This record gives sequence, C-alpha cells and structure tokens, in this order.
Amino acid sequence: MIDANTVLLGLLASPCRHSISPAMHNAAFDKLGINYAYLSFDVDTDTIKGAVDAIRVLKMRGANVSMPNKRAVVQYMDKLSPAAEIIQAVNTIVNDDGILTGHNTDGIGFVQSLIDEGIEVKGKKLVLAGAGGAGTAIATQAALDGFYEIAFFNRKNARFENAEKLAEKINQETDCKVTMHDLNDKEDFRKSLETADVYCDATSVGMVPLEEMSLIEDPAWFHEDMAVCDIVYAPRTTKLMKVAKKANVRHVINGLGMVLNQGAAAFELWCNQKMPIEYVKKQVFDEVKM
Amino acid sequence: MIDANTVLLGLLASPCRHSISPAMHNAAFDKLGINYAYLSFDVDTDTIKGAVDAIRVLKMRGANVSMPNKRAVVQYMDKLSPAAEIIQAVNTIVNDDGILTGHNTDGIGFVQSLIDEGIEVKGKKLVLAGAGGAGTAIATQAALDGFYEIAFFNRKNARFENAEKLAEKINQETDCKVTMHDLNDKEDFRKSLETADVYCDATSVGMVPLEEMSLIEDPAWFHEDMAVCDIVYAPRTTKLMKVAKKANVRHVINGLGMVLNQGAAAFELWCNQKMPIEYVKKQVFDEVKM
Repeated sequence: MIDANTVLLGLLASPCRHSISPAMHNAAFDKLGINYAYLSFDVDTDTIKGAVDAIRVLKMRGANVSMPNKRAVVQYMDKLSPAAEIIQAVNTIVNDDGILTGHNTDGIGFVQSLIDEGIEVKGKKLVLAGAGGAGTAIATQAALDGFYEIAFFNRKNARFENAEKLAEKINQETDCKVTMHDLNDKEDFRKSLETADVYCDATSVGMVPLEEMSLIEDPAWFHEDMAVCDIVYAPRTTKLMKVAKKANVRHVINGLGMVLNQGAAAFELWCNQKMPIEYVKKQVFDEVKM
Repeated sequence: MIDANTVLLGLLASPCRHSISPAMHNAAFDKLGINYAYLSFDVDTDTIKGAVDAIRVLKMRGANVSMPNKRAVVQYMDKLSPAAEIIQAVNTIVNDDGILTGHNTDGIGFVQSLIDEGIEVKGKKLVLAGAGGAGTAIATQAALDGFYEIAFFNRKNARFENAEKLAEKINQETDCKVTMHDLNDKEDFRKSLETADVYCDATSVGMVPLEEMSLIEDPAWFHEDMAVCDIVYAPRTTKLMKVAKKANVRHVINGLGMVLNQGAAAFELWCNQKMPIEYVKKQVFDEVKM
C-alpha cells in the first residue's frame, strides 16, 4: 500500500501501456516489502529530457527506458555502465542522490536466461539475427560475458551500418570477434549456423502479429547440439521454436527468461537485492493472456 | 494494484513524509476502482518549478501543494480558480491535457466542515485567528461562501501586512466585510467574540507540541449560541476545544472535517466524482495514531 514514504520508479516509453514491467516490479516490491511503486509514463523523444529532469526533481529511485528513448536518453546520463557505453543505449537508470547512471540490462537478461537453462557461453559461438535495440544489447553483453565469436545478421540498412560500428567497438574492447553478415544472404546464414552453439532471433518476427513467420523454416539448418532462442514470448512457442523442435535441438527457449532477467537485473540495481523471479513469473506471466 | 495504465498524482511539499494525503486518496481510488496512484514528493521552492514541469511531462492528473510551495507555485499555473486568484496560493493542481489550473481547497474544506455540522454560514460573522496559509484560505472562501463579516486577527508582522492586502481584495470582490485586528489586543479580541457566530483558530497553537496552549483560556469569552473550530486535529480535542466545551458552546469542532473536505474537494476536481468521505475517514483516521 502506497503511503507518504513510497518512492517512485517508472517506465519512460511510448507506447507504454502494454508493458509488463509495472506488474513485474510491483509484485516484487510487494513480496519483499519494499516501499517502491513503479508506474508507466508515456514519454517520447520530445519529452525524454523533461522526464529525466523529473527523475531528479521527484527523487525517483530510477527508471526503465524503452522505445523510442533508449538511445536519446544516453546524453542526459551522468555515468554509463560498460555495456551502455558500448551500445550507446540505456534501458535502466539508477538515481543515486541526483547522480544518474545509465545501464543496459537487456543483454544481461539474455545471457542470464541461457545460464539458467544450463547453456554454456564461455568460448562459444553465437549466431544473432536482428540489429535493433535488443540485438545490439545482446551482442554487446554476449561479448562481455565470454562468447568467443558472434556472427551478426541484419538486412543491409541503417541498422546494419550502426551495427558495423558497434562490432568494431566490441572487437576493440573485448576478446570476442564479431562479424557482420547480410541476412538476405541465405547461404551465408545457413553455413554460419552449422558451427553455432547458440542461435538467437532478436527480431520481432514470430511475435504477434507476425506469429506465422520465421526467419528459418527448414529444420535442417539446425543441429541437435545447440541452443535456439527466440526473444519473443507472445506466443510462448514461436514458429522458429517449432522448427527447432522438429530438428531435435536440445535447448529451445523463448524470450520469457530474457524479459524476467533484464527486469531482475534492473531490480537488483535499484534495490540491492535479488528479485524473487519465480514468484514474479508466477504472479505476472501465469496471469497474463498472450 | 498498479499496472501500466495507472495515472500518477502527488503531493509536492517539504517536509512531505508526515502527510495523510497519500493514505486518503489511495484509499478512495481503491474503493472506487479508479486507476490512480498518489505519492508524496519532497519538493521545496528550489525544485517546485521542475516538479510542475514533471506534472506535464509525466502526464500526472494533478497534485496537491503544501508548505513551502503554495505561493511559489502560483506563477507556474496556466489558470487559477477564483479563490486561488484572490489568495495567491494554490493547494491543488489539475492537469487537463497539459493545461494546469491552480485551485485552493483549504477554505472549501473549512466551510464544508461547518455545513456538515449544520452550522449556517450565510450572513454570519466569523472571528478568525491566524493569517498563515490556512487562515488566508479560510478568510477568502468564507467571504466567497456568504459570511457577512470577518474579524481577522494576527500579530502585527509580515503576515499581518499580507493579510491587510488580502482583506482589501476580499472587500472589493465579495459582499463580505473583512477587518484586520491585532491579536495582541486582548480586549478587541474578546469584544469581537461577543457577536461572533463562528470562531476559528487557524494557528498551530493547540497542535502537538503546543497541545497545552490555547489563544483563549477563559470560557467567558465564548457564548453558547456559536461555533468554535480549531483547525488542529492532533490531538482530536485541543485545549481551545476544552475551553469552549466548558462554556457550553453548541458546536465545537476540530480540523478533521476540514482536512477530509479539502481532500474531498481536490479528489472531485481530479476524478469528477465524490470522494467516499466516510470510508476514507474510517480507513485513514481511525487507524492513524495522533
């Protein structure tokens, strides 16, 4: 129950009404008896500066940042985490007495969701499709956390060029080798997968309303001894995952672990304690119709 | 339960942690199923401008304003209610799609608390002690709501001078006649009370830690056929009220009705429906130790 001591947190995004973050964080605050409240605020690139000012003025503990503000918000941070610095995108802000640090927990959420499934990351090869916000965060964190090689696929557009620069930075600053590939080059894509330990689809293909689509339709492109991850969690089993299951792929996972773990990482930054993930999952995801 | 559609409201004050407004409004939102959340924000005159910006940026429905911001916030409003215009102080802000209107419901709360007790106000005489924020709001609303005469007492200090200007404005803009009096002139004070229909103590005398004090100690200053009001509600029965009860004064009331009704007036401005006052009173004031 909110009282005069309740501290505010929030999501700064547009649109923001579909987000499950308020439900996740409020369930966790409630469970642990932390007097925080997390609301959604409809904030776009015109108002993101004012919203960051509001974090300081209203002494909010922090915020999540999502579309279209993840890159725009970077310039207003006092500090950046290593991942946020490389990606030049922020999804989590922590306010320590007016000093704002921008973090990016999207990639952390992805890597943690692999670890939770018993999937090794050190010295492994990742094939990654989609160089949007999620894909760039995943590439960066995967490199920071010990993947040896990343084959990063996107169509040749502005995102591709942006990802080329990111790849250069990752190659300079980590031991991981990232190479950029054209997603339209199907033969290159198929061959890259032959030696992949993990394949991750970081596009919105497979998500409602694209739930009948998959970048990969032929089970022969996969092999059993790998992991196939879709960052989509609505539906719970995407077309891609069905193809992977036909190929008897050992680990086939959706984006639920990623979204839970990116939230848990943000929660821990704000609260200095672990989010009760299993409780939150049960409270939020078992209830939500998707 | 807060979700992605919950709309924020808040108190902008310093200190702000003692306020019962969050408990009052959240209880009412909860009871009526209104998806609003009301938090307290520690805002002072250095940050009040930023906090008003935050109302617009975060698309808050509105706010309450208390010490030390009631006067400072006036300059940032797009519109003012008649009472707020006269008093030049705002305790409630309503945000209609970015247009902020400043209201002052403190006086409304006082007058409504009289009406709730069956005390007539039209054509009556009010003796009022204390020209602070509460007193000036009460004088203004009492004049707007039909009191015929107000004898307004304060010590001769900066507040007195401010109240003199207010009295002039009220005398110009309403049918009520306000006269200013020195609270140190005990004989004037006593004589004014002889013809008073309502006496209101709008000072903090009588409130913890001044609970053993009263501006009036002699029951002979009162008469049975009047109302004596203390805007203090902690303790529930103040020293002044005890003196009035000794004089067999018909209506002796504390500030609980005023605080509930000022909140109810703000609630109605935000929600376009009545606050469930009896429910809120039971939930909030029967629980709070004071």
